[in-house]
This record gives sequence, structure tokens and C-alpha cells, in this order.
Amino acid sequence: MRRDKIMNTPAIRRMPTYLHKLLKMQSEGKVSVSSTELAEYMNIETIVVRKDIALTGISGQRRVGYDIGELIRYIIQFLGWQENISATLIGAGSLGSALLGYEDFSHYGFKIESVFDSDPEKIGTVIHHREVYDIRTMAERFSDFIPAVAVICVSNTAAQTVADQVVQLGVKYIWNFANVALQVPSDVVIQREVIAGGLALLGVRMKMDRLNNIADK
Amino acid sequence: MRRDKIMNTPAIRRMPTYLHKLLKMQSEGKVSVSSTELAEYMNIETIVVRKDIALTGISGQRRVGYDIGELIRYIIQFLGWQENISATLIGAGSLGSALLGYEDFSHYGFKIESVFDSDPEKIGTVIHHREVYDIRTMAERFSDFIPAVAVICVSNTAAQTVADQVVQLGVKYIWNFANVALQVPSDVVIQREVIAGGLALLGVRMKMDRLNNIADK
Repeated sequence: MRRDKIMNTPAIRRMPTYLHKLLKMQSEGKVSVSSTELAEYMNIETIVVRKDIALTGISGQRRVGYDIGELIRYIIQFLGWQENISATLIGAGSLGSALLGYEDFSHYGFKIESVFDSDPEKIGTVIHHREVYDIRTMAERFSDFIPAVAVICVSNTAAQTVADQVVQLGVKYIWNFANVALQVPSDVVIQREVIAGGLALLGVRMKMDRLNNIADK
Repeated sequence: MRRDKIMNTPAIRRMPTYLHKLLKMQSEGKVSVSSTELAEYMNIETIVVRKDIALTGISGQRRVGYDIGELIRYIIQFLGWQENISATLIGAGSLGSALLGYEDFSHYGFKIESVFDSDPEKIGTVIHHREVYDIRTMAERFSDFIPAVAVICVSNTAAQTVADQVVQLGVKYIWNFANVALQVPSDVVIQREVIAGGLALLGVRMKMDRLNNIADK
């Protein structure tokens, strides 16, 4: 909680989108980019882009724009993505499969190195070049090396049990895609991904539009 | 942008998690809940829970707690979820399939009524009780009824083309899961879901922990 307060969450959430755009521009041979260009691309105001970029610690060269290569390095450094992050995925359903196939993770140093499931029909199958292991073999497989992050993609009802298991094995970071708030010891960090959160925002925007339409009549 | 500024985005994003918990408590026969209970569950401070709940317009009864049924109604009303939201999904890959199987959407009045893809291997298959249609038939199928929301789950490279198509057909709300900023007319609302955004937050937290560990030594 304390950490949430001092982190500029929306700005950090925008970083992968800047990075994606900058990597694309770099591959197209571009050398510099202005905050205005990035603002147009992101559909946000230029001042917000400047503040976001300032967070990375890069020194501003507003007249000539930012050097794309340098900005990429600063963003990656800011996100701590210059070091590889080892991860395990629990739950090889469609959402888990989507994460295994997420093409941008490789640029981010995020490596899902093992996949576990409890479903006999999934165990032994290969998804995006990774074999699905029986969840009962997890402790054994992690006897030497414990991944930094556990990505939890199991059902809401199974999520807490899985969290307990990975915490007991020594995992310190959990990326949780189940729609439940997991209870873990205070030294474990949880990043909860609530997919329905976007739907909540969309719902509020639709409601505001309806109210504005009524007001206009 | 203007709308983003006046919306309390983190609070709105938390609403589905409250709702999920409250629906579960209601199904267990519970009648009232305190902000402290919700705060413990959510791993946030009680004052934040109270502020979140105040957004819904419910009158606080802090001593005895909130009536669970009433709070559920207020949250649903606040999110505009009391009216059904019709949606179409474009892209029947693993992420699209995950959304089709997302068990909580039915509680939220969010109905993905049609699914389109351009892959001949996917067209005609049935995913979570919905048949995948050829994307080339979209205009024809939407000649009578246009869904409120288009959920875009195609590759980053195809996303803009698909957005152009649905906008031309009259769709006003896009829920975009591709990692690109879509360019659309100003009367179209985009909700972008950047899955790597959570990874960015996790990366920053891991970096802060590393720095704290160094500082402690």
C-alpha cells in the first residue's frame, strides 16, 4: 500500500506502450522523437508525456526531441527490465496460453520458464514451445531454482491454494490474474490484474455518455 | 483525456473486485459488511475503501456496516452495469478465448454476442458456445444491429485495420487488448488494456526491493 502511494501507477502502466512505439520507430530507422509526437500517438496531452518521460530520469532535450535509443534504455532501466525476470505460470487455460504467446514479453526480459496445471488433459501438452507439467511436481522442480515471479492464471476458487503453494516454495512476486484478492505474508508482493477493471472504466464512460445525451436533449 | 482526468481510475478498477467479494458474501448468506473487512480483503487502507464506496453514492452506515445487497446494487448502478452491454469480439486466439470464457462477465451484463476471425482454421469452430464467423461477413451481420462495444484481440499489426472497420460500421466503444494506441474519430471511446502494464508495475516494485536490499546492507 505504502509503495502504491509513492508510485505513479498510470504513468508506469503507460511505459510498455511508449516502449512498443519507440522500438517500432527505431526499427524503422528513426533517431529522435518529440513529446508531441508521442502525445498524439498515445492520445494524451504533451505535458503528461513529458512528466512520464521525466520519471525515467532522462534529461530533456525538448527542442530537438529525445534520442530514441537513449529513451528506450532509460525506460527499460526505469522498469527494471534490463535484468531478466524468471517466471513460472500456473494454469495453462486460454488466458495462460495467451500470456505464453504474448510476443512483447521477450523484449521485456520476462521469461516464463515453466508451466504447471492440474488438468490431466493439459499435463504433457506443449503450448508455445513449453511443456505443461503436473502441478504436483512443482516443489520437486523448484528444489534448486526458484523463479522470481509466479503468474497465477487458475480459476478464482483455486487461486488462493496455488498462491499458498508458491509462497511456501519461496516465490516473492505474484502476478495474479484471478479475480480474487490473495492473502499472502507481508514480504510477498502481489500485482493483481483485474481484466474486468477495464470493463468497469468502459461502463462508467458509457453511462456518462448516456447522461450527457439526455442533458443535451 | 478530459474524461480520464475527472474519473478516479484506480477506484473504478477496484469495483469489480469489491463486487466479486460482495456477491460471494451474499451467496454465503451474509447481510452486512464493514469497510474494515473489505480493506483487509483488498489489502488496502480502510479510508481508501470508504472513499471508493462513497463514489457509488451510497449513504454510509459506518457503525453497523454496509448492507451487502444495497452495496451491490449501488456498485452495479455506478458502473452502468444494470443495463446489458452488447459486444462483439474480433480475434478468436487464446486471449479472445479467455475473454469468451471469463466467468464473471455474465454478472456484469456484458454479453459478447458474436466472434470474428480471419483465420480459416478458426472460422466455423465453436468457442464457449459461440461460433467464430468470417471477419469478411461482419458488415453484413451488423446491417440490422450494431453492438455497443468491439473487443479487439487481434495482433498488434492488425489492430488498426480492425478498429477502422468497426468504427465505419458505427461501433462507438472499443476495448483494445492489442499493444498499440489506436487512432479513431473523437466520438469513439477507447479503453486500452495493456497487459504488460502490470508487468511494468511489478518490474518497478522488484527494482525498488533490490535497491532497498542494497541500502540495508
